Amino acid sequence: MRVIESLNLEEAKKIIAAAEKKAIEIGQPMNIAVVDAGGNLIAHERMDGAWIGSIDISIKKAFTSRAFDISTKELGENSQPGKQFYGIHLSNQEKIMIFAGGLPIKKNGQVVGAIGVSGGSGDQDQEVAEYGARSL
Amino acid sequence: MRVIESLNLEEAKKIIAAAEKKAIEIGQPMNIAVVDAGGNLIAHERMDGAWIGSIDISIKKAFTSRAFDISTKELGENSQPGKQFYGIHLSNQEKIMIFAGGLPIKKNGQVVGAIGVSGGSGDQDQEVAEYGARSL
Amino acid sequence: MRVIESLNLEEAKKIIAAAEKKAIEIGQPMNIAVVDAGGNLIAHERMDGAWIGSIDISIKKAFTSRAFDISTKELGENSQPGKQFYGIHLSNQEKIMIFAGGLPIKKNGQVVGAIGVSGGSGDQDQEVAEYGARSL
Amino acid sequence: MRVIESLNLEEAKKIIAAAEKKAIEIGQPMNIAVVDAGGNLIAHERMDGAWIGSIDISIKKAFTSRAFDISTKELGENSQPGKQFYGIHLSNQEKIMIFAGGLPIKKNGQVVGAIGVSGGSGDQDQEVAEYGARSL
Repeated sequence: MRVIESLNLEEAKKIIAAAEKKAIEIGQPMNIAVVDAGGNLIAHERMDGAWIGSIDISIKKAFTSRAFDISTKELGENSQPGKQFYGIHLSNQEKIMIFAGGLPIKKNGQVVGAIGVSGGSGDQDQEVAEYGARSL
Repeated sequence: MRVIESLNLEEAKKIIAAAEKKAIEIGQPMNIAVVDAGGNLIAHERMDGAWIGSIDISIKKAFTSRAFDISTKELGENSQPGKQFYGIHLSNQEKIMIFAGGLPIKKNGQVVGAIGVSGGSGDQDQEVAEYGARSL
Repeated sequence: MRVIESLNLEEAKKIIAAAEKKAIEIGQPMNIAVVDAGGNLIAHERMDGAWIGSIDISIKKAFTSRAFDISTKELGENSQPGKQFYGIHLSNQEKIMIFAGGLPIKKNGQVVGAIGVSGGSGDQDQEVAEYGARSL
Repeated sequence: MRVIESLNLEEAKKIIAAAEKKAIEIGQPMNIAVVDAGGNLIAHERMDGAWIGSIDISIKKAFTSRAFDISTKELGENSQPGKQFYGIHLSNQEKIMIFAGGLPIKKNGQVVGAIGVSGGSGDQDQEVAEYGARSL
């Protein structure tokens, strides 16, 4: 039998609240999503004024980070033309996003879920995601 | 120019919190989603233990209720074989759900968003959605 | 060589304007779409307050009517469980709608395009589509 | 409650009429689409002789511009290999277009909808879209 540790709803809400706080601080409304250890969405929120096109992207960034236990920023660097994972974004029914803003969330070195943030520049999304991930 | 009133994030969170309370009361973990006046997701949460297949369904029920300003239960009754909207579930890029659990949310007779609930029987989903919708 | 007679943009606009007039008369905001002899969209409009879920449906009703040179109402009657075309709504990449509101538009007995209307009951959609189709 | 200002049908028609005028002036038949503040289509027209493959593209360009409050030209520049949004075109159920011809439409600095133009070269689509957007 395997025992899988995973984020629960309460933790997902805390992570989102922390990320939201950072987004307010930098003045950029965001979409923020958290998935569990199975890559499935636990919670999502879109701050007032955040891009509607980023709803889907935040959820997919979170999925992607858990799907490969890697930040979407790092995956993206490895998925450019000529790089080792080029084309990976066509796998997994278009759920793969390969730019910054998605981060695995770990506990004792184990990935227990992931966060995805979308709504600003790549740097902003990354900053907000890092803040959320660290809040646990 | 049209002026459209829409739920905001704060209201969406309140609606979800109320629906969650009802779901706990009836002992059935649920997925709960709220969309804005444009049909776009504002917030979603999956309670611990709720079906992962219901993530998508809750979001689509909320969209459907706003898309046609009707409960998904009533739309479903009108979409059975031989009824006036039979086949409607094939429209809108598979975002249409035609069973109970989705409700428009109104303010002063105007639809300002919608809630979608999925995770239990049709009756349970409907009850939780109604409780959430009324909480506003 | 075949010569295909088809509605042009000017005619499509006239048909839509006539249908819109009827929709206003019956007090039901509608989505109205017109396709050409090739089944491809010429023009679409959504009246203020019309359902957003009906954008797609109006366009698909128009396509369906031209695809089979038949009203979607009549096609729908033949596509119920047990009837000769049951299952047809799964063909053509989900572009088939099988309820009232789509009508072929003819000139000298030849189909030159089609109109699709969505936004009310089946009877209302049908009435507005008929008015638009006759306006040519 | 949020109050969202959005283009209405009358304004959408004016924008399309202006864009059409510019398209005639440069001698290139176009598809022209306008979406509201929620990203949902208000109106579309295809000028006689315009590409049928551009129906879908014009609608998607308009959606994309509203989804991210940016021109599709600028988004496209940021979505090339190695750039910060590379891969974004796989989000949002294939509704993202990342080449010129889509523009947000603003009123008092607020995005109230968007226009999408397709039927010519990137420069032509852009020129027609700009003319339409400015007409408001």
